Amino acid sequence: MTIQIIGFAKSTCTLKVIATLKELGIPYEITPPATFADIKTPEYLATKHPFGKIPVLIDDGFQLYESRAITRYLVNKYQGTKNSTVLIPSDVQKAALVEQFISVEISYYNGPVTKLVAQEVFTKFRGGSPDPEIVKEAREEINKVLDVYEKLLEGKDYLTGEFSLADLHHYPYTYYSITSGHGDLWNDSKRPNVARWWKNISERESWKEVVAELK
Amino acid sequence: MTIQIIGFAKSTCTLKVIATLKELGIPYEITPPATFADIKTPEYLATKHPFGKIPVLIDDGFQLYESRAITRYLVNKYQGTKNSTVLIPSDVQKAALVEQFISVEISYYNGPVTKLVAQEVFTKFRGGSPDPEIVKEAREEINKVLDVYEKLLEGKDYLTGEFSLADLHHYPYTYYSITSGHGDLWNDSKRPNVARWWKNISERESWKEVVAELK
Ligand SMILES: N[C@@H](CCC(=O)N[C@@H](CS)C(=O)NCC(=O)O)C(=O)O
Ligand SMILES: N[C@@H](CCC(=O)N[C@@H](CS)C(=O)NCC(=O)O)C(=O)O
Repeated sequence: MTIQIIGFAKSTCTLKVIATLKELGIPYEITPPATFADIKTPEYLATKHPFGKIPVLIDDGFQLYESRAITRYLVNKYQGTKNSTVLIPSDVQKAALVEQFISVEISYYNGPVTKLVAQEVFTKFRGGSPDPEIVKEAREEINKVLDVYEKLLEGKDYLTGEFSLADLHHYPYTYYSITSGHGDLWNDSKRPNVARWWKNISERESWKEVVAELK
Repeated sequence: MTIQIIGFAKSTCTLKVIATLKELGIPYEITPPATFADIKTPEYLATKHPFGKIPVLIDDGFQLYESRAITRYLVNKYQGTKNSTVLIPSDVQKAALVEQFISVEISYYNGPVTKLVAQEVFTKFRGGSPDPEIVKEAREEINKVLDVYEKLLEGKDYLTGEFSLADLHHYPYTYYSITSGHGDLWNDSKRPNVARWWKNISERESWKEVVAELK
C-alpha cells in the first residue's frame, strides 16, 4: 500500500517529509485536509493528531505524527531499499552527529526562520502585511545563527561532512526565507561556507523535484 | 575511560543526560564549567559548544553536544550492556513512537514548563522575583497541554505504553515545576492518567537517585 501523508503539500512540516520520501525514492500520496479548520475537529484530534497539526503518516495501517519523527521512521524503515542514499549512517558516532545537527536546527535555526516566514509568507497568505519590526528582528537573529553556521561549515560541504537528514530538515524554512526576498542572508560574501552549503543541498535532484512540484 | 559530561549537575539539560546514564547503569563524571560566563568564551565556543551551551559529552575522545542527541547516542551505544533497561526499542514502529513523543515533549510540553521554571527557579536563583502574570500564563498553557496528555495516557502507564526515552525527557522541567510549588497541575483529580504517569516515572529507582544527589 502506498504511503499516505495527511498534510498540505506547501506546508513546511509536510515538505520535510516529502523531501525525505523523494531522497529515499519511496512513492507516496498526499491527502490534504479539506481546510485548516478541519485539523481542529474533535474527530481529527482523536484519530489523527492530538495537538491538531499536520503532517500525519499512514504506512500500511501504521500511523505516526510529528514531522521529525516521521522522517526518522522513513529512514529507519526504507533507507537502502530503493537507492543508496544515506540520510542516517549506521555508525553510532556518525548517527549521533546527525542527531546533534538535527537538534541544532530545532534549537537555534528554526526559531528565527519561522519568525521570518510567519511574517513574509503566512501573514501575507492570510491577506495581512508583514510587520517590518519583526522582520528586522528575525533577520538579525538569522544573521547571528548563520555566523555560527559559517564556522560549523568550515572545510565541510554538509553539516556532518556528508549529506544527511540534518541538512534536509533545513530545506523548507530556508526555501521560503529565500523565495520571500531574504536570499541575501544565505548568499553573503562574508559567509562563503553557508552559501556553498545551501548551493550543495538546494541543487540536489530530489529537492529540485520538490520545488518544481511546489510551483 | 569514564564518560565525562561538561555541565552543571542541577541544570535541566544536564539532568536529562544524567537520568539516561543512571537508567543505563553507565558510570560518568560531571565537569562543571567554572561559571556560566565560561561557556561564552571564544575557547568554549570553538572547542565545546558553538552556541555556548551545556551539556557536552566526551566519551573516549568522541565529543557531542545537544542534550537530546547525547541521550540518543548513549542509548544506541550502551543500551543492554550493563542492564536490561530499554529506552528505545529495536522494533522500527515502536522506536518511531518513542520519537513521536520525544517530539511532542519538544514541541508542546517544553515551552510552557520552561516558561514556568524560568520564573520560579531561574529568576529566583538570580535574586529576582517571578512575574505573577507570566506564571499565570504558563500555568494556563500547562493545563491545556496536560489535558491532551490525559487523553494520550488513557489506558497506558507510559507515553508509548512502556517506559522510554520519551518519558525520561520530561523529568527535569516537571521536577522543577512541581518542587517550585506547582505540583497541583500534575496531581489533579481531573487528570488521573497524568497523575499515574508522573507517579510511575518519578518513582523509578534511577530518578530517585538523581533527586537524592540533587539535594
Ligand atoms: N512539531 C510539529 C509541528 C507541526 C506544525 O506546526 N504543523 C503546521 C504546519 S507546518 C500546522 O499544522 N499548522 C496548523 C496549526 O497549527 O493550526 C511537526 O514537526 O510536525
Ligand atoms: N538545545 C540544547 C539546550 C541547551 C541549553 O539551553 N542549556 C542551558 C542549561 S539547561 C544553558 O546552557 N544555559 C546557559 C546559557 O544559555 O547561557 C540542549 O538540549 O542541550
